Amino acid sequence: MLIVGELINASRESIAGFIEAKDNAAIGAAARNQLEAGATYLDVNAGVFVDDEAQYLRWLVETVQSAVDAPCCIDSPDPRAIEAALSVHRGTAMINSISLEKDRYDKLLPILAGTDLKVVALCMSDEGMPKTAEQRLRIADKLINGLVSENVLAENIYVDPLVQPVATNTAFGKEFLEAVARIGHEFKGVHTMCGLSNISFGLPVRKLLNQTFMVMAVTSGLDGAIMDPLDKKMMAVILAAETLIGRDDFCMKYLSAYRGKKFQF
Amino acid sequence: MLIVGELINASRESIAGFIEAKDNAAIGAAARNQLEAGATYLDVNAGVFVDDEAQYLRWLVETVQSAVDAPCCIDSPDPRAIEAALSVHRGTAMINSISLEKDRYDKLLPILAGTDLKVVALCMSDEGMPKTAEQRLRIADKLINGLVSENVLAENIYVDPLVQPVATNTAFGKEFLEAVARIGHEFKGVHTMCGLSNISFGLPVRKLLNQTFMVMAVTSGLDGAIMDPLDKKMMAVILAAETLIGRDDFCMKYLSAYRGKKFQF
Repeated sequence: MLIVGELINASRESIAGFIEAKDNAAIGAAARNQLEAGATYLDVNAGVFVDDEAQYLRWLVETVQSAVDAPCCIDSPDPRAIEAALSVHRGTAMINSISLEKDRYDKLLPILAGTDLKVVALCMSDEGMPKTAEQRLRIADKLINGLVSENVLAENIYVDPLVQPVATNTAFGKEFLEAVARIGHEFKGVHTMCGLSNISFGLPVRKLLNQTFMVMAVTSGLDGAIMDPLDKKMMAVILAAETLIGRDDFCMKYLSAYRGKKFQF
Repeated sequence: MLIVGELINASRESIAGFIEAKDNAAIGAAARNQLEAGATYLDVNAGVFVDDEAQYLRWLVETVQSAVDAPCCIDSPDPRAIEAALSVHRGTAMINSISLEKDRYDKLLPILAGTDLKVVALCMSDEGMPKTAEQRLRIADKLINGLVSENVLAENIYVDPLVQPVATNTAFGKEFLEAVARIGHEFKGVHTMCGLSNISFGLPVRKLLNQTFMVMAVTSGLDGAIMDPLDKKMMAVILAAETLIGRDDFCMKYLSAYRGKKFQF
């Protein structure tokens, strides 16, 4: 499972404060903690600073990568901010995210064309949010074909099928899971990845629902998640799910995490 | 989800003691507690009393059904014990279980033929335990055809695909889940049901693995479980899974269990 640590996001008040204060130590610590907890990529988002997003995003990439040796997931729809961040990024960045919304698609495709950047392809179009698995597949198909025809490798595409709250529509969980499974089967090499916590919006005991839905998504083939890697229970659930679905030879990852007291339960 | 409460089993020392002492109150309480916690069927097992199994199993059915208005799941391979239990059972019993082992199959089929009994059909044959989904499907196919040709309705058959420990073989979880999904798709009307705890045999933090595997099994279509309904965390996980997979209209079961403080998390 590719885990993108979501904590360095300026929509969190503490992070916004660290960014404005140019607090290298605090951002560095947030990066290190997530990496030690199991993240592979570190999401960086400065979206709340509308006019200064490019400048702050570049600073975040520099600050994160001076603290840790890890790639960033550059979380912005703004091509200028993305290019500023990429200008200082070392290694292979991930772009979060392109979608089928025309304005966003047209602006991001040239940045991705012919590169080895990884990219989150969000199943959203100008017609709004998809409801069924079929609608998600249609958007994914267009996004994947568009990217591949611009020489982006299928292996570098992470489709986000877009989680919607089950409290809004009883079928939303099942339709999402079916989309994950079908994208895995129908598009060779393409990955699926997303944040899952929207599934429980409007319901009590959200952590129970989020953990349960993570297991369901792994069962359906999800191979990436944007999440809080410091959530030890969620990390334990992912480890257990990967072991049970056959992604952990001889249960070695499970056993070594247990021995290292890496997860809570 | 059809939940069969597993606690009235003489392999548990306390239950064996209650049976020998003919302790109606204790067995009645075990029945009531499981029913209140959400069980639909109550498993009764007196297998440790080899010579007296028939007598004790009949007493268990009488005792359970004088305490609660619920059907029993008669847990024995011995046709004499099953018939003794059925002679006093009110309502529609479930028989646990027939298998493709010749001796067991030949003895149990006449008891089931032409009845409306529910039956657990265990994917086990004289060739031993199945390893792959394909082997499970072949056994299930023979069991289902054998039962249906003796006028047992497909709807009354609960195939147990047989859980084996993932510590023994990394693929055992995935093969089991694939079997659950394929039985659901390929045999119209037939159910799947089983105990899941064998999956975690030999590994630490078994409850984490058991809960996670339950979610995976529900995702794959499992619609029955033989389990301890007093395990509030497992019951919470099942409720969450059913809500997320679309089996809970308007999340009403989830919300009312939450409001009634029915589950822990």
